[in-house]
Amino acid sequence: MPEPLRIGLAGLGTVGAGVVRIIQTHGETIAARAGRAVEIAAISARSRHRDRGLDLSAYAWEDDPVALARRADLDLVVEAIGGEDGPAKATAAAAIAGGKHLVTANKAMLARHGPELAAAAEAAGVALRFEAAVAGGIPVVKALTEGLAGNAIVRLMGVLNGTCNYILTRMEAEDAPYAQVLGEAQRLGYAEADPSFDVGGVDAAQKLALLVAIAFGTRVDYEGIAVEGIDRVSLADIEHAAELGYRIKLLGVARPTASGLEARMQPCLVPAGSPLGQLEGVTNMVVIEGDFVGRIVLSGPGAGEGPTASAIVGDVVDIARGLVIPAFGRPAATLATPARAAAGASAAYYLRFLLADAPGALAQVAAALGEAGISINRMRQVEHAGLEAPVLIVTHRAERAPLDAALAGIAGLAVCRAAPVAIRIEEV
Amino acid sequence: MPEPLRIGLAGLGTVGAGVVRIIQTHGETIAARAGRAVEIAAISARSRHRDRGLDLSAYAWEDDPVALARRADLDLVVEAIGGEDGPAKATAAAAIAGGKHLVTANKAMLARHGPELAAAAEAAGVALRFEAAVAGGIPVVKALTEGLAGNAIVRLMGVLNGTCNYILTRMEAEDAPYAQVLGEAQRLGYAEADPSFDVGGVDAAQKLALLVAIAFGTRVDYEGIAVEGIDRVSLADIEHAAELGYRIKLLGVARPTASGLEARMQPCLVPAGSPLGQLEGVTNMVVIEGDFVGRIVLSGPGAGEGPTASAIVGDVVDIARGLVIPAFGRPAATLATPARAAAGASAAYYLRFLLADAPGALAQVAAALGEAGISINRMRQVEHAGLEAPVLIVTHRAERAPLDAALAGIAGLAVCRAAPVAIRIEEV
Repeated sequence: MPEPLRIGLAGLGTVGAGVVRIIQTHGETIAARAGRAVEIAAISARSRHRDRGLDLSAYAWEDDPVALARRADLDLVVEAIGGEDGPAKATAAAAIAGGKHLVTANKAMLARHGPELAAAAEAAGVALRFEAAVAGGIPVVKALTEGLAGNAIVRLMGVLNGTCNYILTRMEAEDAPYAQVLGEAQRLGYAEADPSFDVGGVDAAQKLALLVAIAFGTRVDYEGIAVEGIDRVSLADIEHAAELGYRIKLLGVARPTASGLEARMQPCLVPAGSPLGQLEGVTNMVVIEGDFVGRIVLSGPGAGEGPTASAIVGDVVDIARGLVIPAFGRPAATLATPARAAAGASAAYYLRFLLADAPGALAQVAAALGEAGISINRMRQVEHAGLEAPVLIVTHRAERAPLDAALAGIAGLAVCRAAPVAIRIEEV
Repeated sequence: MPEPLRIGLAGLGTVGAGVVRIIQTHGETIAARAGRAVEIAAISARSRHRDRGLDLSAYAWEDDPVALARRADLDLVVEAIGGEDGPAKATAAAAIAGGKHLVTANKAMLARHGPELAAAAEAAGVALRFEAAVAGGIPVVKALTEGLAGNAIVRLMGVLNGTCNYILTRMEAEDAPYAQVLGEAQRLGYAEADPSFDVGGVDAAQKLALLVAIAFGTRVDYEGIAVEGIDRVSLADIEHAAELGYRIKLLGVARPTASGLEARMQPCLVPAGSPLGQLEGVTNMVVIEGDFVGRIVLSGPGAGEGPTASAIVGDVVDIARGLVIPAFGRPAATLATPARAAAGASAAYYLRFLLADAPGALAQVAAALGEAGISINRMRQVEHAGLEAPVLIVTHRAERAPLDAALAGIAGLAVCRAAPVAIRIEEV
């Protein structure tokens, strides 16, 4: 049997502790699968003596993660520190520069520095792997980079933030407004005290940026993603969408278009009966449409100690087996920089208006949409008690610019009693 | 760039033609991903001149697939002939013996000869890959062998035969009996003229046998799988199951138990709201439960030219990148031969009786179950017009042996007007 693969582990939070636990639990199985022993040789973390329920006595200790990354007795560094710069980036760069393979769960670092780190890893002849950075335990990076390598990807969709999906599904199930459910999620530990990273869509968009690069062979372009969070999704819209046969998801969508690569992370309506529509709670889901394979759907836990550590160990086993391929599935120098498609490619939209309950109000809205060339598929006035009538419209496919112009016009009408709401409907 | 990977393709049916089409369509992309060109060098098939809509003029031709497999100018053979023995097996053996990597979609061959071929491939230092043999385009072999390598698998479930799932979902949707829907499926090309391979569960069980070997590190043991087809699933049971909140699926289930490895392919009730319950049509689904990762669900097209060829090309790209790992994820010599668990591990059951509409009939059934220690969770007498009353019972968890004994006793009662039906409920 070849030499053991010797790992340096930087970071002992949830993710790092999970890696230790898996390797301690399944060391023999992993060795059988990898064809060689996989050993943790050294660890670095902020606190050496915090009780993590783990026996760390067999491992060397480094206070400084960069010193860990520079140790001569390691083959591979697992970066589980987190943060887009700082110690994580320094550790990653030092590991690669020292000829060590790097496995990371750090989507923020890769969304910003992915191209640079990938090029450095290639130059050093080492692997840079990041299955754990996207959709937790779901082996989606592997599916895209390897299993579906014979396809041109025609569309990629993903629910990539469990916190957002938990909040949206609980709002519907409990008939509770956003702020209340967010508070519950925070108490349960599903949402951070500062939730903006999750509910603002940033976390999900970072993950999407990595998937897009792999799927379409492009340079990571986080700034190219149109991001909108769930904080403005109202209970009313969730309930009205359900009446129309839809559910609202924070959905990442990417696809090549005639004008460039479209990539967005935003609340969308999806059919309630589709796999995306049926997705509950903190589970993540990725839908991959390839020109030969058709539609593949992958779902599973998107976060947590076990799933994230499982993904890291999967990457480690690949490297132990000798797999060294470019981080984004093809050489960094060949990754394309496509034009960014204009936001608002043609789609059907869900529109909600609050109108004065007066003769002709609906006609004025319909006329404004008609003049803008927005064609109505379905319209429904919701039963109401007061003097203001909620009106729901599902449009046929429309461009966003004329729609926005029409909505601005409608907002200025005397009969319009609240800012109109427009949410894209993603056909799945 | 390294030398091209040169492929010999044995078989030009649906699968083989798809492989040619992908490589002709995406040659440049595949080369970028694989780090080297991937070329078809030679082809063998029964008919050289049948019109397949493909230009084959660039490829050498061999009438004999074994001669193809022995060509000195090939690195890899794709076996797309089919059949568990005969030319497929001879071609596979010749390729491996000649030091060529082998990629195959042939589940029947691997279910029978998998251990032998895997050992031969290891001895020859070549890869044997078979992503296309299980669940078509879904990269599930890869997910189990590589992505989830850090887990002990605690349960594996799969809907692995699209024909069966199509028939079961159409029976429910159209309110149509088995024979009628099977006839439709045959006219649409979803079912063979001799459907026994599909509806009898053999095809699905062969696929399950391969997944089990990978998931649990065991020798392929097709004979160890308890197989039951869908031909005895009645429309009445589908409809009654739906009333109780379930759907009937031909479900493969495998898990380690205290008495050995349980592996079965049989009709089961699953909750209608679960991903398995929601699976429609010819789509396949695999559910993998790992001790660290939790539950991963993969779904997609389980057959057809594009999906199957996509899986083959994924394997080819892996090999072009240099990945050579044991076929079943660990060395063939280390694959275990566990005891086969006694069939009928404890489970809840759906029971259907047809009873005389007479006082005390239900009491006799309930008494017989009670005496056997079978505890009733739910019972329901279905509204009926005639003199015979359908009675549905959902049991608590029960062992199969006392249940069968109780059902035999009930079948002998004067009030029992038809053979009792028992279908396992799989908790998902």
